[in-house]
Amino acid sequence: MKKKNKKVNAAILIIGNEILSGRTQDKNTIFITNWLNSKCGISVEEVRIIPDIEKKIVKNIIELSKKFNYVFTTGGIGPTHDDITAKSISKAFKVKYEYQQDAYKILENYYGKKNFNDGRKKMAMMPKGAKLIHNPSSAAPGFIIKNVLSLPGVPSILNSMIENCKKYLIKGSKIFSETINLYTVESNISKQLGLIQKKYKKSVDIGSYPFFRLGKIGVSIVMRSNSKINLKKVKKDLEKIINKLSIQKLSI
Amino acid sequence: MKKKNKKVNAAILIIGNEILSGRTQDKNTIFITNWLNSKCGISVEEVRIIPDIEKKIVKNIIELSKKFNYVFTTGGIGPTHDDITAKSISKAFKVKYEYQQDAYKILENYYGKKNFNDGRKKMAMMPKGAKLIHNPSSAAPGFIIKNVLSLPGVPSILNSMIENCKKYLIKGSKIFSETINLYTVESNISKQLGLIQKKYKKSVDIGSYPFFRLGKIGVSIVMRSNSKINLKKVKKDLEKIINKLSIQKLSI
Repeated sequence: MKKKNKKVNAAILIIGNEILSGRTQDKNTIFITNWLNSKCGISVEEVRIIPDIEKKIVKNIIELSKKFNYVFTTGGIGPTHDDITAKSISKAFKVKYEYQQDAYKILENYYGKKNFNDGRKKMAMMPKGAKLIHNPSSAAPGFIIKNVLSLPGVPSILNSMIENCKKYLIKGSKIFSETINLYTVESNISKQLGLIQKKYKKSVDIGSYPFFRLGKIGVSIVMRSNSKINLKKVKKDLEKIINKLSIQKLSI
Repeated sequence: MKKKNKKVNAAILIIGNEILSGRTQDKNTIFITNWLNSKCGISVEEVRIIPDIEKKIVKNIIELSKKFNYVFTTGGIGPTHDDITAKSISKAFKVKYEYQQDAYKILENYYGKKNFNDGRKKMAMMPKGAKLIHNPSSAAPGFIIKNVLSLPGVPSILNSMIENCKKYLIKGSKIFSETINLYTVESNISKQLGLIQKKYKKSVDIGSYPFFRLGKIGVSIVMRSNSKINLKKVKKDLEKIINKLSIQKLSI
């Protein structure tokens, strides 16, 4: 069945004190977001960063899983005491927190029976009914339960796993974008830009972002839409204004 | 009045489609968080990234301003149509959205009467009762209303303004941290680490974060607390375990 203009959205829940303490720069948001956008036509509509506190994880999983088509969690699925994501998701969905048999076998095989200690076994504990997201780099799998996909927090490992999420996701229609970079200040074109946005309110999102490049001030105008045709129309309207105001365009 | 172990917390609300679309890496979270931690003893307990949609901004401002001592917003206070933060905060607090006279004067003076167009005037529109956060780099001020502080989204401008938030904030007690880097895998020490965390459950947060350095796998153990004494105790307990398990420590 071909579906036109199907909007599919997602939220990302970053679980980890290390991000909130300012110790670590979150790199997972931009990676997941770009992947969902370009590969799945899924747009991320909210991101939350919360600490490793069970009550907070439970509350956010309940809230976000109701509001969005998918929720991606990152962090908290390792072997240590502060890894409580799987347990918290079990509580949120009121299902048992138990050994996922396939995960258990994968990990036992990876570490060897002799070295398969409690910490390592913990990584096979998941919400009942969870299906695995294969981990090609460090064995410990992620999982999906209902519409929540749980991935690790270490960017290199997460990145290596992301393609394995695809089979669980419904694709949305592709999101197209166009950018025009101008050597001007925002307030020079804000009025006209506002009028174009009003005209295409429902079909194209127009954003304006100041930049500084080689000592010169500029603005990037970013247009995003599910419709290539409307995107083209907005671009044409914008070009007219740029010419009228004699604003210099940046070639890159 | 000297206050001991006073906990002050904050949330950050990143407003901007450019972060959610994956176009731009958020750099404001880590900057604000580190500044609040080190300079004000304020810990950030939640971050949310949301789109430029009035309804969502209003809802989040209401929710977060009730739950946390302070809310820092970034983005959406420029001159264009997608800059709706000030208007949305006015709605959240049910106050008028009007010209802030001091901001109007600053901007009129900066641009000159002749060039003070509607887009630029818009940057003086704020919730009634707002006080200014001075902007030394591009004139347009941020503002504080109740416990919400609004800053721009461009990192370089935000960074130049942050010190001017200080006078509006109540300080919390300093948060101390210690890090020990080990050449081992998490699952080798997860059990012992869990026991230490249990012992100091209420006073010290212990986090464990895997790293890869020069081809070797390691774990950073990060301990954070308001109490230097308890931090020292935890470190001592940890050192004992490291010695017992003959784990190699990293000097840096």
